[in-house]
Amino acid sequence: MSAGTIYGLGLGPGDPELMTVRADRLLRQARHVAFFRKAGRKGQARQIVEGMIPEGAVEYPMEYPVTTEIPLTDPRYNSLLSAFYEESTAHLRALAAGGEDVVVLCEGDPFFYGSFMHLYTRLVDHVPVEVVPAISGMSAAWTATGSPITWGDDILTVLMGTLPEEVLAERMAASDAVVVMKIGRNIDKVRRALRRAGRHDSAWLIEYAAMPRQTVQRLAEAPEKVTPYFSIIVVHGQGRRP
Amino acid sequence: MSAGTIYGLGLGPGDPELMTVRADRLLRQARHVAFFRKAGRKGQARQIVEGMIPEGAVEYPMEYPVTTEIPLTDPRYNSLLSAFYEESTAHLRALAAGGEDVVVLCEGDPFFYGSFMHLYTRLVDHVPVEVVPAISGMSAAWTATGSPITWGDDILTVLMGTLPEEVLAERMAASDAVVVMKIGRNIDKVRRALRRAGRHDSAWLIEYAAMPRQTVQRLAEAPEKVTPYFSIIVVHGQGRRP
Repeated sequence: MSAGTIYGLGLGPGDPELMTVRADRLLRQARHVAFFRKAGRKGQARQIVEGMIPEGAVEYPMEYPVTTEIPLTDPRYNSLLSAFYEESTAHLRALAAGGEDVVVLCEGDPFFYGSFMHLYTRLVDHVPVEVVPAISGMSAAWTATGSPITWGDDILTVLMGTLPEEVLAERMAASDAVVVMKIGRNIDKVRRALRRAGRHDSAWLIEYAAMPRQTVQRLAEAPEKVTPYFSIIVVHGQGRRP
Repeated sequence: MSAGTIYGLGLGPGDPELMTVRADRLLRQARHVAFFRKAGRKGQARQIVEGMIPEGAVEYPMEYPVTTEIPLTDPRYNSLLSAFYEESTAHLRALAAGGEDVVVLCEGDPFFYGSFMHLYTRLVDHVPVEVVPAISGMSAAWTATGSPITWGDDILTVLMGTLPEEVLAERMAASDAVVVMKIGRNIDKVRRALRRAGRHDSAWLIEYAAMPRQTVQRLAEAPEKVTPYFSIIVVHGQGRRP
């Protein structure tokens, strides 16, 4: 019996119509569908594909042992996550070894700040793994603003809101176009960094890009409050325009 | 009669299966299909969708008056391109005014260093325009390497090979993950910049990502020659990995 394949299936930003033709096909034929979720939640990736999983397919939710309850810097964070990824990997490997294909649902693009890569690196030397790329959340965000993100020779810098304020401010000032992800409770720090860099007035805040609840607003006009996890800040480049 | 819509249809990196479900559907229903190409060529975007355009659809190739024959810094470059975009826009506007929908084929993601945005900015105040995002070429490139591009808090910088060597070297050294696009005849300069930044040995060269001729090799092992226009260099981030 030949081993099954584990597919890291990029779903894109959230609109099922923005899934690729390949991802759509693989999902609609799936017999095993795995996905990450926060304990007690339905799971964002699972929600995107509501109604698309074939009847009779076996679902395997992988519940994070911890998300924001412990700071990233705490050594327990890494050891808890590491054990969780090992356990999830063991289950997926067993399925593949039994000849079953498994689709792992991934929000956004699997190799771009995704959780799937923690499984991928543990699987790739043992069973067939295939990654299906997808539209990133940032692409949905800049598309939602109705303005191109980069022109000509513009430099684009992608920053995580979890970085220190000084690093954020320095990079925001030095780049033509800027994308900030993982904002959530880092929003006040991100705002301060944008102000220091002189980019706050040209920044846009996109919540839930390409999802039904999508909102697009100038950051300067947005209420000063914690934004949802699926928020992205965009500062557009202004490069060469014939 | 209501005006037609002009669709900036992102095709993604080149594999038709990596088009979105939405782009696939809009293309297969299209009555007017416009696309850019270099004079005398079939056109890369047009080639991607070979066999997908419905019978009877009207094709409108938009041929660049100049590509690399005149340097970007020559004022004639801007004026030639500008006139070309005006002329193309006038044609598309006339179609939309006559009630026709038009699909404009865009390689990669339309708002990410695309040519479509030069039409978009000239159209958007006059006729309905809708942009369909897509997978960028860089996503196909990092997926092809079989390694994630960014982890945890990694900073990603996207650079064009057309930038000065000093700028390239400085940004390559300061970023965790790096993508370089628009390489072609800039390859020697890009290699020098990577060496100055200490990143040459960890760089990958991907030619024709997600196309039938795709190649993936370590840059240090690639022959020293001019690479095709559809080449991308990737340096992976090494961030947090539980």
